Amino acid sequence: MRSNKPMRRIPFSELQSTLERAMLNLGLTPERAALSARLTAETDRDGVRTHGIARVPRFAEMVRLGSVNPHATPKLVSSFGAIERWTGNRGPGNLAAYAAMNRAIELAKLHGLGAVALAETTHWQRAGTYGWQAADSGLAAMCWTNTLANLPPWGATTPALGNNPLVLAIPHQHSPIVLDMAMSQFSYGTLAAYRERGEQLPVPGGYDESGALTTDPAAIERTTRPLPIGFWKGSGLSFALDVLAAMLSGGRTAHQIPSDPIQEVGLSQIFLAISPTSLGTITELNAIATGAIDALHAATPITPNRPARYPGEATLATRKESLHLGVPVDETHWQRLLDLAK
Amino acid sequence: MRSNKPMRRIPFSELQSTLERAMLNLGLTPERAALSARLTAETDRDGVRTHGIARVPRFAEMVRLGSVNPHATPKLVSSFGAIERWTGNRGPGNLAAYAAMNRAIELAKLHGLGAVALAETTHWQRAGTYGWQAADSGLAAMCWTNTLANLPPWGATTPALGNNPLVLAIPHQHSPIVLDMAMSQFSYGTLAAYRERGEQLPVPGGYDESGALTTDPAAIERTTRPLPIGFWKGSGLSFALDVLAAMLSGGRTAHQIPSDPIQEVGLSQIFLAISPTSLGTITELNAIATGAIDALHAATPITPNRPARYPGEATLATRKESLHLGVPVDETHWQRLLDLAK
Repeated sequence: MRSNKPMRRIPFSELQSTLERAMLNLGLTPERAALSARLTAETDRDGVRTHGIARVPRFAEMVRLGSVNPHATPKLVSSFGAIERWTGNRGPGNLAAYAAMNRAIELAKLHGLGAVALAETTHWQRAGTYGWQAADSGLAAMCWTNTLANLPPWGATTPALGNNPLVLAIPHQHSPIVLDMAMSQFSYGTLAAYRERGEQLPVPGGYDESGALTTDPAAIERTTRPLPIGFWKGSGLSFALDVLAAMLSGGRTAHQIPSDPIQEVGLSQIFLAISPTSLGTITELNAIATGAIDALHAATPITPNRPARYPGEATLATRKESLHLGVPVDETHWQRLLDLAK
Repeated sequence: MRSNKPMRRIPFSELQSTLERAMLNLGLTPERAALSARLTAETDRDGVRTHGIARVPRFAEMVRLGSVNPHATPKLVSSFGAIERWTGNRGPGNLAAYAAMNRAIELAKLHGLGAVALAETTHWQRAGTYGWQAADSGLAAMCWTNTLANLPPWGATTPALGNNPLVLAIPHQHSPIVLDMAMSQFSYGTLAAYRERGEQLPVPGGYDESGALTTDPAAIERTTRPLPIGFWKGSGLSFALDVLAAMLSGGRTAHQIPSDPIQEVGLSQIFLAISPTSLGTITELNAIATGAIDALHAATPITPNRPARYPGEATLATRKESLHLGVPVDETHWQRLLDLAK
């Protein structure tokens, strides 16, 4: 996301080691601090700045308030064949999600596909992290989380749905297809960023006070009526993802999650991994994906020489640049992280 | 969908037996003709008139032209644990899809979850059919199909994506949650219906000749630029669903499917079933879904006394009315069906 804020570039290794010190200070064991630091640093490295170090101060505050227990680890609750229920025990959400996807991958290697339903967890930071995790292991994956209620269902004006990010990941040579999308067209963070820059949204993003669709971010902030993707469709999809995650995990649905972001705990998540190589050869699988990518790129672009892109396509270029030139971070976020790493 | 066309109501049993005669005339065996007739009659019974008897003349034409083989049955290609590859052998798509979901349900009962990836199939008619099939058996399900390319990817003006309907189904007492949504905001059939009535779309549905978002259905028909749900998000989701279905089934992606609807064959589909009762009791599972439904209904409605609805909520009322008063059908569609049933 673009920003007017002062930026700087930090070498990846410095970003990671700084995060690691901050996590140690918050009480994580060395091994868990290192993993958490890597996942967060990789998020900024890949250009998803809303969900990297920007979120660490909130995480620290949640640890301080006791809503996240830095010592809690995910535990198996029950299992049946290729599906398992786990609880996150309200520990760090990224570590629980990483463990859950790892376990789903193990199950998929045994059974062709496998799922972990995780209850009582906390914010997993970047959703796409767990898609990359699977795709980098040669697995396809689908995962999603519910959230606090922040989106009115279609036909209503008060929030009753989460924006419930959904991830689909497909391995493909060195450039996987990774889709990471929330059920609202724009997050509140994105609305705020547009407002601060004095810009209109590129497409309608919600409703104004008169109930009309608008591209004015401030109007949507005032009504708290952001638009679900596809209007009634995203509303329905958000609801179905929420209920399925809660039912399979034995956990909470959106309306049972505290509405204060600093207390957004008790989330329900699903991690589904599928092993394409249990059914086809890598050559065959790659050829299918490459053919589809080529056809996508062959569509006539609106802007000459800017072909349509597949989900995740831009990530590798951003990643390469971050590793070469340093990871771009907001100056303010960096200073806050340094404070936590002291 | 509303229509200005003359309608009549046909008793469900008469609709079903008429369909059965038509399918026998097209060469289906008695058992397969009966199943096909039931699935199609249930589609009209549930009010999804675009995908019920309205589609039978096209199916008959595809059989006549040889693009659908009425005698072909789905066959297992390979399997690994809880996932299987099948081919539809270009037989009737609804029968292949029904068999695939049945097999996914069997796998889920054995393994907690199960999947069938189906290649070389033909149009499955109503997507939601296979969601209801799973939910009525107490299983949760996710299934999707690719289609011919009929949707420009985000950033392009020519079709390279299918509208790839996606279904999520969750069992819940006698009233399952069943979401059935295509990746375009409106189908071409819906655009035509609005144009014929001289109405504007309720929300923007695509682009006009100047490249601006429009609610004018005729303008979208002219540009063939319908809107993916959530703009870039639905574009990415459509692409990922397409590639995943083709990779797992070893089948075709959208760009390899003939662009003439009468030759839309060789589709790839995924049927994933999950057994919630392998992890929780029915009482617990129902309580979770009921709680979420109650919270949805409690959101402040835009129109007083018209609460937000969950996906599938309206279906049971429509079904009951159809069974009581007869199934509403277009007079023209009914006459065409009678011709095929002679």
